[in-house]
Amino acid sequence: MTPSSLDFIFNPRSIALAGVSADASKPGPAQWYLMSLIKFGYPGKIYPLHPAGGEINGLNVYKKLEEIPGEVDYVVSAVSARHTPQLIRDCAAKGVRAAHLFTSGYSEIEDSSGKQLEKEVLQIAREGSVRLIGPNCMGIYCPSGGMTFAGDYPDQSGFPTQPGPFALISQSGGNCIYCIREASERGLFFSKAISYGNAADLNECDFLEYVTDDPATEIIAMYIEGIKDGERFKRALRRAAAAKPVVIYKAGNTETGARACASHTSAIAGSAAVWQALFNQLGIIQVNGMSELVDISITLAFMKPPQGRNVVVAGSGGGVGVQAADDFTGAGLHMPFLHVDLRRELHGIYGSEAGSMFRNPLDIPPLGSVDHHLMALRTVADSKDVDVVIMQFPLDLWALSRRTVLMERFIEVVTALRESISKPLAVVLHYSITSQARRLEEDARARFAALQLPVYPSFSRAARALDRFIRYHDRHNCV
Amino acid sequence: MTPSSLDFIFNPRSIALAGVSADASKPGPAQWYLMSLIKFGYPGKIYPLHPAGGEINGLNVYKKLEEIPGEVDYVVSAVSARHTPQLIRDCAAKGVRAAHLFTSGYSEIEDSSGKQLEKEVLQIAREGSVRLIGPNCMGIYCPSGGMTFAGDYPDQSGFPTQPGPFALISQSGGNCIYCIREASERGLFFSKAISYGNAADLNECDFLEYVTDDPATEIIAMYIEGIKDGERFKRALRRAAAAKPVVIYKAGNTETGARACASHTSAIAGSAAVWQALFNQLGIIQVNGMSELVDISITLAFMKPPQGRNVVVAGSGGGVGVQAADDFTGAGLHMPFLHVDLRRELHGIYGSEAGSMFRNPLDIPPLGSVDHHLMALRTVADSKDVDVVIMQFPLDLWALSRRTVLMERFIEVVTALRESISKPLAVVLHYSITSQARRLEEDARARFAALQLPVYPSFSRAARALDRFIRYHDRHNCV
Repeated sequence: MTPSSLDFIFNPRSIALAGVSADASKPGPAQWYLMSLIKFGYPGKIYPLHPAGGEINGLNVYKKLEEIPGEVDYVVSAVSARHTPQLIRDCAAKGVRAAHLFTSGYSEIEDSSGKQLEKEVLQIAREGSVRLIGPNCMGIYCPSGGMTFAGDYPDQSGFPTQPGPFALISQSGGNCIYCIREASERGLFFSKAISYGNAADLNECDFLEYVTDDPATEIIAMYIEGIKDGERFKRALRRAAAAKPVVIYKAGNTETGARACASHTSAIAGSAAVWQALFNQLGIIQVNGMSELVDISITLAFMKPPQGRNVVVAGSGGGVGVQAADDFTGAGLHMPFLHVDLRRELHGIYGSEAGSMFRNPLDIPPLGSVDHHLMALRTVADSKDVDVVIMQFPLDLWALSRRTVLMERFIEVVTALRESISKPLAVVLHYSITSQARRLEEDARARFAALQLPVYPSFSRAARALDRFIRYHDRHNCV
Repeated sequence: MTPSSLDFIFNPRSIALAGVSADASKPGPAQWYLMSLIKFGYPGKIYPLHPAGGEINGLNVYKKLEEIPGEVDYVVSAVSARHTPQLIRDCAAKGVRAAHLFTSGYSEIEDSSGKQLEKEVLQIAREGSVRLIGPNCMGIYCPSGGMTFAGDYPDQSGFPTQPGPFALISQSGGNCIYCIREASERGLFFSKAISYGNAADLNECDFLEYVTDDPATEIIAMYIEGIKDGERFKRALRRAAAAKPVVIYKAGNTETGARACASHTSAIAGSAAVWQALFNQLGIIQVNGMSELVDISITLAFMKPPQGRNVVVAGSGGGVGVQAADDFTGAGLHMPFLHVDLRRELHGIYGSEAGSMFRNPLDIPPLGSVDHHLMALRTVADSKDVDVVIMQFPLDLWALSRRTVLMERFIEVVTALRESISKPLAVVLHYSITSQARRLEEDARARFAALQLPVYPSFSRAARALDRFIRYHDRHNCV
């Protein structure tokens, strides 16, 4: 099979949902998938399936796959593990091309019967030319194909229908959901996201090969617990990394983590050192957690490559500026002392009241006008000593006082700055737990996300992402 | 002066606010202090002060300090730096015992005139027996004395009036505000918090000596950029650390950070290695940021000391459990494989449907009943292989579906568990940026905070705090 042959998984013309009971008092996962697809606007035919028949949401519930009048490309199954062999036999008979097995209870369980059952299901699928996704996973999110596992059911919190350049291949469903929500709220949307679980049939290599060739995908991220075929994975990775930035969180790096992988998706985690050597060799960006995975992906998507490691941090608040200095220089970036002539220029712009906070970090007077801020920040950005401009906002402080005015003014400044400087610009909106600060932050983040500006919740996360971003570009420009 | 002589700073009987204009169109910082004190319920007399006179909020605005009829214990000054020498002369004449100088423009500015002015003000204060807080700082928060710099003005986002056992001594005003809001929203309240800025007169040593002897203070935290007198500080630290847990974020550990300190509060940061050696020697808990400072303080306040490093992580979600394993073992904690007999017991409690996720992390079936969860978690907590129980909640996942039911059930479980197990218990409510998950998180956090349960926003932060907490107790039990 060529990679492009997986297109049918992301764009099926019809989907049957096995295990959708018409009994409204028993809403199970299959019904959740059903409602999600409807609300998401899936453009193909949807067929609910349950031995008891009936009707749900105006749709006839078919008792068996064979009773469905039209062709069925894809099946989402929430039936229990022990009924799956028969379902896959029915799929084969009906000519279904792919089945996504949501249910768990296979090779990930301690009891060896789970492994046997997974083997049996796989064999039936292979003989019947049915490709499997899972078992024990959430399946496919592909906005351009109308595929989702989280529509607007039941509480309006589904995934965005807007497509984008980001592909995620995740062994874990929970991490997949986290990443989709986190990245999209920060302005980065998806070509495809795949939660693939135990990978009985289709595995990380199949999906990686596919997104490597997928023209809609510009950045690839993976959450992997373990792999099935090391040599094939290495080849697939090499080809992917040569084509697009690849970010990987390889979990289970510790002994306990490895054990957790085995119990989660039956994966063999392998040695951390071996993985790291491989990633280094291929120029893969390795991260240590899902939030870091999103941070660097946002950076890859939205930030212009800096010409060097000199960072200027500008914003409001002195103590927080000190922390910025510790965090950025701690991550291997530089925060150059601004030249005395430049500082004099800044004093000239703001007048004498501004104090002396222009060394870097810049503690700029919050009450200055938009024009003053813009003039000052453009002057800073133009300096040959500056490669990256980071703006930071003391949300807790502003939430305490004239919040709306100050925040509005700075949003205006950052928006105009983005348009008028050639150097990369990013924003730190400090993570806060107080509700006033959060409302400020949510509003500002949404507006910066719409501008495709990279926003981070702390200096340390910004610094780490920036360091990796620069290393990535250093490497890929030299090779 | 004995340390207790500083009591008058935290419990002044009357406060004059210099720089409060009766012109409502010019609300400056002095007015903010005024409104904060009123809304906070400050029990003493409040005297607004401004050369123009007038009336504000029903209070007469005095043109000069000497015109105030009664005694004035304490002055908050927001007048500009150049008018401060005269103000302090007036304070001395009036018998004012302490003045808090909010305004900046002293030794922290580049221009040497600032240093000279600070020297001049200090000399006048010393000659007139007026103690100074600042300049360039937010001043005092002391709920038991009705002192605050953030009441409910203008947007109901002031500090809590509830007192507690936590004292913070912070050179930075912004970091002080962050810490007060973060700690109190997580259930830890304050005996005193001091933002002391340039420390022209009263400095970190004075405040540290004071809170060491303060019976209302059980835990001491400090944010320091630089110190004035190394030998005195060492003595004060030694005495403090012998009496109470002391947590310090010494900022400016990098060259750039040190420069930022100089520009922020004119502090000389000193060498990171020297500081670290001193802290180690004295059993001080050193942290690298304000959020970590709050994490460990919450832990010290709320957690029973564990008997060892064996952590069990229980909750919902497989991928997130893998990350837990990486983060906890990465921080030097152990996640023991649960014994097969214990796992069998758990399977017995939940029945066969539960899969095999009981190795540790425990992926417990979210749909189990409160009784099942309680029985299972008590069984786990009772195991001799377990020292600490961490509960984690997949807020993003729950926000996606039956959120309220699941969250309510787990809050009930954790609340009952807390009452019925002897081992330390903590909660991880994962940081999320999606609004649905945040609402769930805010609600749950507030309820756990009211129970004085330690709550962390990520595994890595929980792991780091727990590691330091155990190290602290290991050391202080052995010495």
